[in-house]
Amino acid sequence: MATAEWLRQRLGYECRDPALMEAAMTHRSAGGRNNERLEFLGDGVLNCVVAHLLYREFPLATEGELSRLRAGVVREESLAAVATSLSLGDHLTLGPGELRSGGFRRQSILADALEALFGAVYLDGGFEKAGEVIEKLMLPRIAELPDAAELKDPKTRLQEYLQARGLSLPNYALESAQGEAHNQVFTASCEVDSLGLRAHGQGQSRRRAEQEAAQRVLDAIRSSMSAEK
Amino acid sequence: MATAEWLRQRLGYECRDPALMEAAMTHRSAGGRNNERLEFLGDGVLNCVVAHLLYREFPLATEGELSRLRAGVVREESLAAVATSLSLGDHLTLGPGELRSGGFRRQSILADALEALFGAVYLDGGFEKAGEVIEKLMLPRIAELPDAAELKDPKTRLQEYLQARGLSLPNYALESAQGEAHNQVFTASCEVDSLGLRAHGQGQSRRRAEQEAAQRVLDAIRSSMSAEK
Repeated sequence: MATAEWLRQRLGYECRDPALMEAAMTHRSAGGRNNERLEFLGDGVLNCVVAHLLYREFPLATEGELSRLRAGVVREESLAAVATSLSLGDHLTLGPGELRSGGFRRQSILADALEALFGAVYLDGGFEKAGEVIEKLMLPRIAELPDAAELKDPKTRLQEYLQARGLSLPNYALESAQGEAHNQVFTASCEVDSLGLRAHGQGQSRRRAEQEAAQRVLDAIRSSMSAEK
Repeated sequence: MATAEWLRQRLGYECRDPALMEAAMTHRSAGGRNNERLEFLGDGVLNCVVAHLLYREFPLATEGELSRLRAGVVREESLAAVATSLSLGDHLTLGPGELRSGGFRRQSILADALEALFGAVYLDGGFEKAGEVIEKLMLPRIAELPDAAELKDPKTRLQEYLQARGLSLPNYALESAQGEAHNQVFTASCEVDSLGLRAHGQGQSRRRAEQEAAQRVLDAIRSSMSAEK
């Protein structure tokens, strides 16, 4: 299958310039136009798109946490795994030496070719298209990151947990606000009818009180899960 | 002057969300919403846009050369110099400690705030707008790079470009030599049959005339590449 057709079937991407896609799949060992410059470009596009995905998905993460998360997403093993899941190796053009030594399975060659492909899609279809392709491939990886779950705020995590199970969303209510204007303590409740759970939280803003209440509901869900199993 | 107005006057950028621009100008020492997460995002956008500018401007550079060039463009001193040329320091919001110690002149603070500004423009106006702002500010820096000047002479670059693609080499011809013996002006032509390109150059030696002709053919190749993408 030609690279352009494979892209259409696997990624839903209709390319304008099939030769550019072939160049992205051509390792330097094959001679001629190869994918090294496209890899440089694609690495930049990938890092930018992943930065935006992480910025959006982890609204409470610090710059340092975002940087660590990104390093996990764009590292060679991760990219090679994505390339393998796409059977990218079947489309590589390699020189005779690399062919003999099984270069189409080498992690670095696969990861570099995937970056080159992102660069080619960027040149061919623009930033938005490249972003769609990268999001489709990398967002599942982001969800799997070891520290990812801990970085989302409790309200978001609770909402996602309930939505994933088709359950009704929680109700938040402000129970009280005490103290002087510049130093108030808020108390909020979080109730999940479908699970019969309710908890309170306190904080120096309504938002923080709600986050704490959501965290306590998550804790209750977690301990009921441990008890079950 | 408010940050939004400064951006309009200095960069021709009309922002939709002035609060986002203010956040980009707020150092963490000031407390509240600061620019650290925007800096993470803007760093990604900057690297991507600069990668594309270099890819476009240096069609013959290798991946290694492009990486070195980019490192030069996005390094802290270079970004701080751009920030200073924009009087960015006048718009920074700093905490009392940084204010006392002249933080608005510190290179790292200026460079980080410029990256945060790129991140804010990206969120506010999209990738194309951020790309325009970054190109306006960084393209002059790219032209000044020490390695850029060291890039090979036009005849060599043209030859390498054609060889890498398996195309026939250019033909040079001396068209005329005018003026007195010690002050002649030579005109040479450079013709690449395989690409259907031909250009003339002039100079005080035959070699210089040929180099100028080769440069014009390279320019034609470059603009046809830009047109393609």
